[in-house]
Amino acid sequence: MTAPRYPTIRLHPGRHKRLLHGHPWVYSNEVQMDAAAKAVPAGSPVRLVDAGGTALGVATFSPHTLIAARLLSADSDTAIDGAFLAGRLRRAADLRARLYDRPYYRVVHAEADGLPGLIVDRYGDVVTVQANSVFMDARLPDILAALDETLAPAAVILRNDGSQRALEGLAEETRLAKGAIDGPIRLEENGGVFFADPLGGQKTGWFYDQRDNRAFIASLAKGRRAIDFFSYNGGFAVQCALAGAESVVAVDRSQPALANAARAAEANGVAARFEARRADAFDELERLAAAGERFGVVVADPPAFVKSKKDLAVGCRAYRKMTKLAARITEPGGFLLAASCSHNVDPPTFAEQVARGLTDAGRTGRVLRVAGAGPDHPLHPHLPESAYLKAMVIQLD
Amino acid sequence: MTAPRYPTIRLHPGRHKRLLHGHPWVYSNEVQMDAAAKAVPAGSPVRLVDAGGTALGVATFSPHTLIAARLLSADSDTAIDGAFLAGRLRRAADLRARLYDRPYYRVVHAEADGLPGLIVDRYGDVVTVQANSVFMDARLPDILAALDETLAPAAVILRNDGSQRALEGLAEETRLAKGAIDGPIRLEENGGVFFADPLGGQKTGWFYDQRDNRAFIASLAKGRRAIDFFSYNGGFAVQCALAGAESVVAVDRSQPALANAARAAEANGVAARFEARRADAFDELERLAAAGERFGVVVADPPAFVKSKKDLAVGCRAYRKMTKLAARITEPGGFLLAASCSHNVDPPTFAEQVARGLTDAGRTGRVLRVAGAGPDHPLHPHLPESAYLKAMVIQLD
Repeated sequence: MTAPRYPTIRLHPGRHKRLLHGHPWVYSNEVQMDAAAKAVPAGSPVRLVDAGGTALGVATFSPHTLIAARLLSADSDTAIDGAFLAGRLRRAADLRARLYDRPYYRVVHAEADGLPGLIVDRYGDVVTVQANSVFMDARLPDILAALDETLAPAAVILRNDGSQRALEGLAEETRLAKGAIDGPIRLEENGGVFFADPLGGQKTGWFYDQRDNRAFIASLAKGRRAIDFFSYNGGFAVQCALAGAESVVAVDRSQPALANAARAAEANGVAARFEARRADAFDELERLAAAGERFGVVVADPPAFVKSKKDLAVGCRAYRKMTKLAARITEPGGFLLAASCSHNVDPPTFAEQVARGLTDAGRTGRVLRVAGAGPDHPLHPHLPESAYLKAMVIQLD
Repeated sequence: MTAPRYPTIRLHPGRHKRLLHGHPWVYSNEVQMDAAAKAVPAGSPVRLVDAGGTALGVATFSPHTLIAARLLSADSDTAIDGAFLAGRLRRAADLRARLYDRPYYRVVHAEADGLPGLIVDRYGDVVTVQANSVFMDARLPDILAALDETLAPAAVILRNDGSQRALEGLAEETRLAKGAIDGPIRLEENGGVFFADPLGGQKTGWFYDQRDNRAFIASLAKGRRAIDFFSYNGGFAVQCALAGAESVVAVDRSQPALANAARAAEANGVAARFEARRADAFDELERLAAAGERFGVVVADPPAFVKSKKDLAVGCRAYRKMTKLAARITEPGGFLLAASCSHNVDPPTFAEQVARGLTDAGRTGRVLRVAGAGPDHPLHPHLPESAYLKAMVIQLD
């Protein structure tokens, strides 16, 4: 087979070392950005070479982004075609089939699965696809063909609404690429049945990343009153009820999300012990603390408070305040789960906000669990900082 | 009740703030170390006050150690007596009874359980106790009485052989404090039966801290050849066999540890798929790599390579080399678990050694799990750096 004739991108002297050490990225200031390089259409496959011309591999390239190249293969003869994408997808799907008995999980987690910019979630025979880069967006036909071959989904939803798309100059859109969807889609997690609405007005999906953390806190909820702030579609709340909580309250501002949570409570036979409460989480935390209410399990898993680095200080204060308020309504001996999905808050920084929040509330305790996302959200070994999810479970005195 | 008349220890101006923020330690340079303070017998309870005389709580105190005081209670009227210790022990035991169905776990994990310097492990009706501070050593009679009251063990083994005891000027000793032990003791973990010998010639206990990591890697072992380096009493190896591994090899230098592993294989009905191999782990890794042998699951959970900070560079190289060799014998699509229990290697540093080791072996892959010890080894919220255990599970391409 003839090697594909991708444009050649040459790095500055010495700037190939990170790649040789296993890191998959090249920054724009490391590239010899001559007229030819600047003329390469964004999202193209390129052949990377070091300053002396030695081949480094095949990468996706964008001349105008901070991360200029993302390695696809260290073998420079690799053709980046439908077969290549299908092979990577199959490898990712095989791993999940080994991890889980039931077909509900994240199938592709971008870079870690060798498919930078691509996210695929599976809800039985419904699949959602996020293409977060120009490269992946241009290859959607190949991705859809590979999905058909590997998973044979009845329906495919393109959820091209991520914030990363805007950075890549891509339009936002959510649409059905295959099949038909009639109302919320059904999924299973930790033995329960849940509902999400990735195509509805609110475009709410499901966050499989908290699967193991949900199982852990639910295992502590038996016989206790539980409350779940930022409950979304009710994953934590309903799983606590399923595990035998005396009662659970799901608190969220979104009526459609609460409707999905209530539907899940019904489907799992725990509706009699379930309450959906539409409220702002901080307002409700303040109200409950003032009223002297106490719960045996308190979950606070908010949307990202720190969406960009400039929000770090404000966001950290919000995590600290959230922990303080949540601790106030946790009974002695009870359990508090505090989580953050902010990429920009590293684990030690989050742990510090949580520790401070406990002290602000005048509470002591012990951290039982510090965990990230489940194994269907793997990490690239050289991108440990891409571990965005942080969950801590604390028993309070 | 009259407040106990413990000696008063006064801090330097401003040096009370860390305590007020929730941290439990005072360093010796933060204490007004006058003649009276220096005369306080090591391990005594003291009343801490700030420079202005405001009460901060009751602590254990040692005038000659870097950590001079460890807070026991922020309430300065707390009496540090048998009832206090029994209350803390009961709280710790209640948590574990909630976490686990079967009585096999770490009962007390020192500072996080409000009992600095004390470690208690439970093997059904046998309990091992480590008193790692002068304070706890002096209170052993109270601890033993509290254990009788809470857990009513048939036998209690004092395993006062930790390296921390030497720092506190305490002698090493391992002896039976109650009851009788006849041969290795039996324990259960993740549905399997195991054996440990905390009183025998090798004084080998059991490391419950890897319980969840053992369950995870075992879940990936079905139908695969597995090998467990530094296998000790066979926890990883036998659990992989129990989960359906085609074959497992336990590699260790200790014949008594391998005998316990073989006994566990027998007791769990997997002896036909189990091999105990007495060898140095690095030698055996080199030999297998040279012979072109490949395994679907490779576990490398060594003793601490970095026992003090001066060993950091050498120890990091050892973790990197261990990962490189283990990756070489992991088949494509197979799983590698690399672990470190070195206090002095922080999680990012360990992750970097693992990533480098993979690259040294010319392998790529994805990190499925980054985890510490299980929830019976909790952390004090203000001492996150006490999380000594790091385990990473990687699928290799």
